[in-house]
Amino acid sequence: MRDDAALSTDNRPTRLAALREALGKADLDGLLVTALPNIRYLTGFSGSSALLLVTALDCVLFTDFRYEAQVGDEVGRAATVRIESTSLWNGVWPVIAGLPGVERVGFESAHLLHRDFARLLEQGSRWQWRPTVDLVESLRAIKDAGEVAAIQRAIGMAERALGRTLPLLAPGMTETAAAGLLERHLREEGSEAYPFATIVASGPRSALPHARASDRAFEPGDFVLLDFGAVADGYCSDITRTVVLGAANADQRAVYEVVREANLRASGAIRVGMRGMAADALARDYIDACGHGDAFGHSLGHGIGLEVHEAPRLAKTIEAPLATGMVVTIEPGIYRPGWGGVRIEDDVLLTEDGAVVLTTFPRHLIEIA
Amino acid sequence: MRDDAALSTDNRPTRLAALREALGKADLDGLLVTALPNIRYLTGFSGSSALLLVTALDCVLFTDFRYEAQVGDEVGRAATVRIESTSLWNGVWPVIAGLPGVERVGFESAHLLHRDFARLLEQGSRWQWRPTVDLVESLRAIKDAGEVAAIQRAIGMAERALGRTLPLLAPGMTETAAAGLLERHLREEGSEAYPFATIVASGPRSALPHARASDRAFEPGDFVLLDFGAVADGYCSDITRTVVLGAANADQRAVYEVVREANLRASGAIRVGMRGMAADALARDYIDACGHGDAFGHSLGHGIGLEVHEAPRLAKTIEAPLATGMVVTIEPGIYRPGWGGVRIEDDVLLTEDGAVVLTTFPRHLIEIA
Repeated sequence: MRDDAALSTDNRPTRLAALREALGKADLDGLLVTALPNIRYLTGFSGSSALLLVTALDCVLFTDFRYEAQVGDEVGRAATVRIESTSLWNGVWPVIAGLPGVERVGFESAHLLHRDFARLLEQGSRWQWRPTVDLVESLRAIKDAGEVAAIQRAIGMAERALGRTLPLLAPGMTETAAAGLLERHLREEGSEAYPFATIVASGPRSALPHARASDRAFEPGDFVLLDFGAVADGYCSDITRTVVLGAANADQRAVYEVVREANLRASGAIRVGMRGMAADALARDYIDACGHGDAFGHSLGHGIGLEVHEAPRLAKTIEAPLATGMVVTIEPGIYRPGWGGVRIEDDVLLTEDGAVVLTTFPRHLIEIA
Repeated sequence: MRDDAALSTDNRPTRLAALREALGKADLDGLLVTALPNIRYLTGFSGSSALLLVTALDCVLFTDFRYEAQVGDEVGRAATVRIESTSLWNGVWPVIAGLPGVERVGFESAHLLHRDFARLLEQGSRWQWRPTVDLVESLRAIKDAGEVAAIQRAIGMAERALGRTLPLLAPGMTETAAAGLLERHLREEGSEAYPFATIVASGPRSALPHARASDRAFEPGDFVLLDFGAVADGYCSDITRTVVLGAANADQRAVYEVVREANLRASGAIRVGMRGMAADALARDYIDACGHGDAFGHSLGHGIGLEVHEAPRLAKTIEAPLATGMVVTIEPGIYRPGWGGVRIEDDVLLTEDGAVVLTTFPRHLIEIA
């Protein structure tokens, strides 16, 4: 995390300055920001309708009348706010035309629909539009102290909710009902939202890495996999635990212990400077060596922050090195179709001295009596 | 709703035939479908990673290994499934190159990111790519009997959950805790997911049309506005009720009655063939006439289905006429900044004989003792 962050509660000027530096390096006079999490990061605005124009001297946020009351409170002096009564895009053209020396303007290639790209070429034809990738995302990947604290609050909410939920799981309860219990506890712990659709996958369904909750009723001896998170001040946590309803059999225990060891090895050995692919291998090589290589069919982890999936990625194909201040998930799993699966997911902060595991919920195999 | 729908449980062939007819009219040899709800509508696939290629003879769905188990069950014979181990896009080029007579291919302009549009121009440069708008969406706007039944199930879940939640609201409870209660009840009633972030807005916050739940605690005499929905077999409901904690004062009652009357007038008079703008005016003109015109700052309603906001729109600017089989929300509101707001939202099915109001929850002002 950046040292300057702890000294200030408002890091938006620092973020904007870093973005302007990146724009300068890319030879751009400005950036049209269309990704809402990027807009929130730069301005604090959390609404669902916004465009942001950043140049060397100006920072103009366009939103609609529905957010007129909210936007002032959230944005303060971080941006000039324009409330548009028709399309946000209609507001952009006169504003950008009034900014001196703005010719080459970047846009976010991964966050601009073709429909809106067509507007740039038509109504915005007097400017030179340049696709950009990850300009704001690469800033967001490095968390400051305030962001880490928010993620920790979101982790605390998730862990307390899980602790209250697990003792209530029992054969006969459906996955959907269990998700409802967990979500109510998340709300009671203060979660603003659900960062993604809660996964409660039981018995054979625990072998589906992206199952949601279904109407399947728990049976004695089932694995129950819970993958969920909380949101605090916009920041997400993302946690998975897998438990057994009743006494685990030897097979379940053996698979569980491989995943647990893979999780511990990865969070113990992940280091700043390591490539994403090398981090992924920390868990993958161990699971491979235990004979389950084919059964770990997803990547090891991903960054969390204002989005539950953001930069960096810990995956086989990723060459980019990890950096201090990144917060990532470590989530190895083993899935056997028809039988079941285990995933154990923690959230860790990368520091110069190694990973700090932010999640504290026990990782041993919990058997729910 | 289409008459043929009631006779068959699988309407996917009908939908595909209608799309192919639309492609023929647009002089296109095929369509690359990138919007996940459109893919679900045409194939049944509910996963979060997919591309679909539709031509006169072929229908090919591309997804990744995570969905290998799920996709077969969901899609059946509705499409040829290709499981891609790297990028879905890598799978598209060899497949499309093998389809005879495919030259002019449409893409979904409102659902294709610039990043992916660039792929069409680069890796896909041997085809002629044509932007399209709303080809599948305009089919989806007309619900068949199975879709209406799913929406009705989602409405039933939402109404039962609301009925269980309202008696538990009390001063001192936070909006977030109330949202958690409501959401748990939604889960217990069988909702697969939350179609949007639950709104619980109390006291002055009820004047924010897009407030989410916050940590504000209810106070005696507050308006409490609840806007939420359930999901059944992928289909959404969307309901709003506004109640008072304790006895309503005269001002609250007066505003409430204007909104209630506007709601009743709109759902009573909305007709097939009417333009979206005329439907909007049914409520707006009444609210205007009552002296609250400036306080109804959003449009009257929108279609619901696989998405909670879909075609058609009932708004001041919409000239398109309404058609039989559309399911739309009717949600007039009055919002006074600093004081509070009221919205009453129902879901209605348009038939040749007028609107059938699918929501049955009482619309009178409920005072929670």
